[in-house]
Amino acid sequence: MVKKIRRIPKVVKKLYRKDFYHEPGTLPGTIIIDENADYPTIYLIDYQPNKFIRKQVETPEECIPYLDTQSVSWVDVQGLGNKDILERLGKVFELHPLVLEDVVNMGERPKVEDYEDQLLIIARMVVPKERICGFYSEQVSFVLGKNYLLTVQEEPEHDCLENVRIRIERGKGIIRKQGADYLAYTLLDAIIDGFFPVLELYGDRLEELEEEVIFKPTRQTLQQIYQIRRELLQLRRAIWPQRDAISTLIRDRSELITEDVRIYLRDCYDHTVQVMDMVETYRELSSGLMDVYLSAVSNKMNEIMKLLTVVSSIFIPLTFVAGIYGMNFNTEKSPYNMPELNWYWGYPICLAVMAAIAAGLLFFFWRRGWLTNSSGIKSD
Amino acid sequence: MVKKIRRIPKVVKKLYRKDFYHEPGTLPGTIIIDENADYPTIYLIDYQPNKFIRKQVETPEECIPYLDTQSVSWVDVQGLGNKDILERLGKVFELHPLVLEDVVNMGERPKVEDYEDQLLIIARMVVPKERICGFYSEQVSFVLGKNYLLTVQEEPEHDCLENVRIRIERGKGIIRKQGADYLAYTLLDAIIDGFFPVLELYGDRLEELEEEVIFKPTRQTLQQIYQIRRELLQLRRAIWPQRDAISTLIRDRSELITEDVRIYLRDCYDHTVQVMDMVETYRELSSGLMDVYLSAVSNKMNEIMKLLTVVSSIFIPLTFVAGIYGMNFNTEKSPYNMPELNWYWGYPICLAVMAAIAAGLLFFFWRRGWLTNSSGIKSD
Amino acid sequence: MVKKIRRIPKVVKKLYRKDFYHEPGTLPGTIIIDENADYPTIYLIDYQPNKFIRKQVETPEECIPYLDTQSVSWVDVQGLGNKDILERLGKVFELHPLVLEDVVNMGERPKVEDYEDQLLIIARMVVPKERICGFYSEQVSFVLGKNYLLTVQEEPEHDCLENVRIRIERGKGIIRKQGADYLAYTLLDAIIDGFFPVLELYGDRLEELEEEVIFKPTRQTLQQIYQIRRELLQLRRAIWPQRDAISTLIRDRSELITEDVRIYLRDCYDHTVQVMDMVETYRELSSGLMDVYLSAVSNKMNEIMKLLTVVSSIFIPLTFVAGIYGMNFNTEKSPYNMPELNWYWGYPICLAVMAAIAAGLLFFFWRRGWLTNSSGIKSD
Amino acid sequence: MVKKIRRIPKVVKKLYRKDFYHEPGTLPGTIIIDENADYPTIYLIDYQPNKFIRKQVETPEECIPYLDTQSVSWVDVQGLGNKDILERLGKVFELHPLVLEDVVNMGERPKVEDYEDQLLIIARMVVPKERICGFYSEQVSFVLGKNYLLTVQEEPEHDCLENVRIRIERGKGIIRKQGADYLAYTLLDAIIDGFFPVLELYGDRLEELEEEVIFKPTRQTLQQIYQIRRELLQLRRAIWPQRDAISTLIRDRSELITEDVRIYLRDCYDHTVQVMDMVETYRELSSGLMDVYLSAVSNKMNEIMKLLTVVSSIFIPLTFVAGIYGMNFNTEKSPYNMPELNWYWGYPICLAVMAAIAAGLLFFFWRRGWLTNSSGIKSD
Amino acid sequence: MVKKIRRIPKVVKKLYRKDFYHEPGTLPGTIIIDENADYPTIYLIDYQPNKFIRKQVETPEECIPYLDTQSVSWVDVQGLGNKDILERLGKVFELHPLVLEDVVNMGERPKVEDYEDQLLIIARMVVPKERICGFYSEQVSFVLGKNYLLTVQEEPEHDCLENVRIRIERGKGIIRKQGADYLAYTLLDAIIDGFFPVLELYGDRLEELEEEVIFKPTRQTLQQIYQIRRELLQLRRAIWPQRDAISTLIRDRSELITEDVRIYLRDCYDHTVQVMDMVETYRELSSGLMDVYLSAVSNKMNEIMKLLTVVSSIFIPLTFVAGIYGMNFNTEKSPYNMPELNWYWGYPICLAVMAAIAAGLLFFFWRRGWLTNSSGIKSD
Repeated sequence: MVKKIRRIPKVVKKLYRKDFYHEPGTLPGTIIIDENADYPTIYLIDYQPNKFIRKQVETPEECIPYLDTQSVSWVDVQGLGNKDILERLGKVFELHPLVLEDVVNMGERPKVEDYEDQLLIIARMVVPKERICGFYSEQVSFVLGKNYLLTVQEEPEHDCLENVRIRIERGKGIIRKQGADYLAYTLLDAIIDGFFPVLELYGDRLEELEEEVIFKPTRQTLQQIYQIRRELLQLRRAIWPQRDAISTLIRDRSELITEDVRIYLRDCYDHTVQVMDMVETYRELSSGLMDVYLSAVSNKMNEIMKLLTVVSSIFIPLTFVAGIYGMNFNTEKSPYNMPELNWYWGYPICLAVMAAIAAGLLFFFWRRGWLTNSSGIKSD
Repeated sequence: MVKKIRRIPKVVKKLYRKDFYHEPGTLPGTIIIDENADYPTIYLIDYQPNKFIRKQVETPEECIPYLDTQSVSWVDVQGLGNKDILERLGKVFELHPLVLEDVVNMGERPKVEDYEDQLLIIARMVVPKERICGFYSEQVSFVLGKNYLLTVQEEPEHDCLENVRIRIERGKGIIRKQGADYLAYTLLDAIIDGFFPVLELYGDRLEELEEEVIFKPTRQTLQQIYQIRRELLQLRRAIWPQRDAISTLIRDRSELITEDVRIYLRDCYDHTVQVMDMVETYRELSSGLMDVYLSAVSNKMNEIMKLLTVVSSIFIPLTFVAGIYGMNFNTEKSPYNMPELNWYWGYPICLAVMAAIAAGLLFFFWRRGWLTNSSGIKSD
Repeated sequence: MVKKIRRIPKVVKKLYRKDFYHEPGTLPGTIIIDENADYPTIYLIDYQPNKFIRKQVETPEECIPYLDTQSVSWVDVQGLGNKDILERLGKVFELHPLVLEDVVNMGERPKVEDYEDQLLIIARMVVPKERICGFYSEQVSFVLGKNYLLTVQEEPEHDCLENVRIRIERGKGIIRKQGADYLAYTLLDAIIDGFFPVLELYGDRLEELEEEVIFKPTRQTLQQIYQIRRELLQLRRAIWPQRDAISTLIRDRSELITEDVRIYLRDCYDHTVQVMDMVETYRELSSGLMDVYLSAVSNKMNEIMKLLTVVSSIFIPLTFVAGIYGMNFNTEKSPYNMPELNWYWGYPICLAVMAAIAAGLLFFFWRRGWLTNSSGIKSD
Repeated sequence: MVKKIRRIPKVVKKLYRKDFYHEPGTLPGTIIIDENADYPTIYLIDYQPNKFIRKQVETPEECIPYLDTQSVSWVDVQGLGNKDILERLGKVFELHPLVLEDVVNMGERPKVEDYEDQLLIIARMVVPKERICGFYSEQVSFVLGKNYLLTVQEEPEHDCLENVRIRIERGKGIIRKQGADYLAYTLLDAIIDGFFPVLELYGDRLEELEEEVIFKPTRQTLQQIYQIRRELLQLRRAIWPQRDAISTLIRDRSELITEDVRIYLRDCYDHTVQVMDMVETYRELSSGLMDVYLSAVSNKMNEIMKLLTVVSSIFIPLTFVAGIYGMNFNTEKSPYNMPELNWYWGYPICLAVMAAIAAGLLFFFWRRGWLTNSSGIKSD
Repeated sequence: MVKKIRRIPKVVKKLYRKDFYHEPGTLPGTIIIDENADYPTIYLIDYQPNKFIRKQVETPEECIPYLDTQSVSWVDVQGLGNKDILERLGKVFELHPLVLEDVVNMGERPKVEDYEDQLLIIARMVVPKERICGFYSEQVSFVLGKNYLLTVQEEPEHDCLENVRIRIERGKGIIRKQGADYLAYTLLDAIIDGFFPVLELYGDRLEELEEEVIFKPTRQTLQQIYQIRRELLQLRRAIWPQRDAISTLIRDRSELITEDVRIYLRDCYDHTVQVMDMVETYRELSSGLMDVYLSAVSNKMNEIMKLLTVVSSIFIPLTFVAGIYGMNFNTEKSPYNMPELNWYWGYPICLAVMAAIAAGLLFFFWRRGWLTNSSGIKSD
């Protein structure tokens, strides 16, 4: 019963890859499967201060024995390509139909929702592309229960959570002594910290563009500024609701989150604000760059026009003078008809007059400062 | 007693089709009928978990027997072309005069109003036009009572609620087991989801325009950007108050809406925020495109001017040289009068000088990088 | 003791006609009379469900007998040209000095103020000018008491309240059965509805300008856009505080306004928001038009420059060639001196070369698409 | 022990004349004296309904006997050039060190602060410059106690409070019957009303600039628009915190301000909002003017370019034709070599052809509407 | 176990020097040491009204005896180059791991956090660069306890707190009589006051740029405006969160801060608002300058084009006339072939006609006011 799927428009798709929306009027809670998505792989990590299990399970039901124990169970699902598995997952964790829909539907805005004994957290993870500027973006959904945490990721690649797995395995820090809420915090923190390397790329690129805009603005510069603005717009769309979500977590005092972890979340909130701050700063810088670009283009035009004006203003009068003595008035019919042509010093005088005109004009332009700007290569 | 009707200005009309406003000072609650509107057709759907009736009724009074039963009754009125029918409808449902006015007047902003035992919800439905970019927009009014839902639509076409009717008929999902509030939610959700296909069109069109702006900006591009901005402005006007309305529904805790349905409305609210988010993103993109367009036009101008300057700067001095040797100074009168004309190599030297000037200027322009930009077709 | 009066600056005056401000440091509650204002005319309407009196009274004191009765008394003062009458009015209605000052001073912002047993409402009425685009603007002050309503208008013309008077006289609707608060609502509603015809004018004018901007932008277009922006700014200043005032009326729960009327005021509030919405939309459209105008001017410039460049680039080289063969090198002195001049096919070859150059350049410009844009009249 | 004083940057100085800031790390409550300031003059006004004393006192201590009486004492200090006097003043009025610092330091933002039995109000007074556009700006500090009001002004000139002194002396209105809080209100009101004459100047100047921008924009116009924007920015900085301060006064319900005076303050608040409203309107108008200016400059450029293009496009081809017949091909060597030169009607035909070309081009330009715009003087 | 460190992007680095961010997924509370940082130096100041100790200590443990006494202990750490020292410091002061991380990590936003018996305050100090415009920026962290204050600075240079140390040593003012909270206030106040000298530099520079923009705009001007905008953006990022932090301090009523000190903090808050106000004003001024720059460049272009147009329009027609009489029509073949060439007054008449044309055109340009603007040097 897989329904007709329409894709989210392309411009946005770059942020929300593989986003789908329902045919208007479909049942709420309907699960839509993208046929090209990866088959779901389920990883289970179960730990206590002195115990650690990490394994891949085949069916959601295999997780059941772990969920009721005192140990913390982290079930991580990667890939969304099978409807049956996902629905069985929903049953195992007793998910509300809307929770299941949100977890599976990959175009949700980051948010936090409280379902009495479960907390749904939707977050967005970004991972920098290696060569070119840009980033991959992926939705990560958390369902936080009493002793367990279910996370759902779209695909196995581009994951910045591996560090956390290693930390649990090696028992570094206090993570093994804390509950599932601390685990959720740790993962959220890793996701937020993942924005910094992406921002680093944009900072570098803006700095390069700055020099380019001022010293050699080309059409490509323009395209790149626009491109950066568009991508920062997407980053902003990803981080703003994340801040609201974390703020809700801190404020709403759900019983699933202990007071201790709330202090850590405050730290995570600070980082989110810092990311937002940098995104906004970059946006202002890039829109300032657009102004500078426009001014630089106008400046360039001024110099082009100055050159044209200088050349034209000097040679057009000279050509006119030459034109006069190219006229064919019959000097024999009258002494007034271009007697200069027959003067002994006619030609040298004519050349001297021309040189004087040219020198006068050059002096005029030099005094207005046009020559240094328009023809010097240095100032360019 | 149909009163003088004035039309809402045309610019807005594209959003609010067939909008009227009252002559200032008219009675509140006055019903104004557009004579060209469709004659009202009334559809009745009455259902229980194990019962389903769907029929068209002739008079509003036929609905009365259904309203008091335990089953959920959905009365759907399409078309507003008859005053008598509408007033009888108002009596059957015991509508407050202001409710009746709002339901009939097709230019209202989306809103929610609580009339003790009834809840008035005004929503706006958009349906994409098929061929060209754009959308139809229609007001849908809901009056939610204890066991019934009255909906009023302007016209029968462009309806995105048919899916819901089919769902009720087939008894899919939980809709048959829920009350009239769940039905209202389902319809609202369908209406909000109906914004996505419209946004998809704009996303595609923006992407096309982006390429056009950078590679071949024309006057039509400008018109289209302005057109999109105007239409997005209209979409924004339609979705913003809708968000406020749904937020009021969730917050105000009217007795007509159960706690269960409120959770579903939260989901609907999320979708509204997502629509708003996309509208705002598109608006920012389109206003960024305007900047890019202006820059592209300036760039084009630069290249035109460069070409003119290169051509003029090269040929004007050459023409001047040719002009000099076109002068008619009498070489016989004096050895200083243009002796070059009588030299054996005069003409070749003259041509060589010209070629040298041209080459020098070309080198000068090439070093400043003007030749590659202004005359190459590739970079264009 | 009429004090020195200074006029509000002219730019604003177009909104707030006949506005005055006090010399800094004057007594609060000071009444300032504009000597050119109309002499106050006082109209009294007194009604009950089965009674209706409408007459013009000479002195404020004549109203006293009506004020204490159970019937609703509406005292409407038009014109502010006499200080004595106004002060006696203040005594008859027992107005606070600040109320009297606000009522008489014609430059107040719309607001609501609660003086225990009286409610002061300042509103602003706009009336479209008939021929040209624009509007008259006039302050209307309400003092709402237990059984009476005092309204003060600046002048008798441009009144959109006549409809209400007729409605009371004919006893249409429920107005005769309601109290003074309902009357105040009815008048406020008429005033808000009076904004729609004014907005209609601007909508039409914007639509005309849109075509003008794209197809034949002139300097007048620019002026008109600026003019519209300025007038919309004034409309905005008039409607924003009105919204706040009505919202205060609904929220503050003064005893003078019954719960029933509050529901009607909610409707009035919706209309105010709709007016604001349209004003903001028009403002955005008009500022978008300014962008389009700038782009259109730049586009025009591009086309002018293209034409100049095409003409110059084609004829300047040709003229150079002609200039070469206009040189007077002595062909007899050397076989290298312009032997072309003596060739049998010299002239035809020269013409052919010129034609080839011209054709080549035309082809070059045609490939870059300059010819179709810059010389075709259609695309213009 | 006068410390090193650094001046506030010049751009801001135009608003906050004689502003100083402390060396970072200095003692709070440190008094800094500007050596060029006027020596403090102390005026005492002490009044009751039937008593009035106005005199200049030499030392702050002379005020002590008046402060404890039932009568209202207004101590007005003008000039801040002596540290000793100011410190003794602080002792006489038992001022908190921070109050004394704020009162003496002339660059504070308007604000209200509650020190239990005293209320500190910092306000900013503007006075229009007479000849040119602009204004003087001066800080006025109020310390309101039980029966007394201390006001501190920077210098004796540019005072708009004289009217109030006269009103008290003549016993006009209710001022003599009210307490010190009413006096403080009266002074605040006079200060706020003092903004209107300043705004009047800007309104007039904007109107003049409007015409200038459209009909003869020059470089001076640009400077003036920028100047006005800068000064409006300063006015805005002066009025915004004033509004907040008055709003605090109304809301905070200090015991020093009676309920009666609070109603008057509401009126004063309305005027502040009106000033802000006008400042914002003027700011929007002036930034709209900048857009119009830019467009007007672009338009002007278009007309210049049109003229150049028309002249060049007509004469360059004609010159080319003339150039052709100036070539020296030897007509005797071949019948194909420029036989036109020897035709009987050669010259007239040539002229006719030229005329035809010119006429054709003129017709072409006329049809595109270039001639009327670019050469007519009227449309300029 | 020093981890891999990545640097914050360069654009931001100018504000937040030596900022690091964690590898996503690292342990919260991890201390990262920059290997090039200074080795920590610890200064201890311990005072009571009649006691004062100031010394440099080698190990954090040396501070322990001072912390529990009644006297106020200020421990100032400068330099962050040793992990061991910092961790021991954390133990001595019993810091929460997150506090230690925030104190050591130099890229935090200013904030206040309450850890029951400790208050963490992160502030940002700016110090003007001496020669060029710009500023150093450094994070200062405060940990306020019952009787002690721990401050951590990044490096020993650029410190504006020395004045406070001297004040304590000399026992000036009330500082010796107050607790650690007053000390914290004093330091915060010194840090806020440190923004004024930086702003002074920008005020001066903006004023210089203003003249430059209007009288001789160059490409460097553009760069400088952009540079100032970028730096003001950074200042704004530093001051905004500081305001929020101080406001939190005042509002949150932690037990560590007495009511008395709260009044002083209000003063400090006012200064922060004043700094923000000036930053915003400067930002508006600098973005207004960008508009003026663009207009000035357009104006310059207009003048260049006017000159070109005047020169071309005058000489092109003249050259055409000269070209005509340079044609070689055979006057002997026909009386119609250029008879002017053989006229007695031919040449003088020709020159006269040319002079007349030139005079006519000059008159035309003079009437349009082009000559005074485009060629006069004064108006430039």
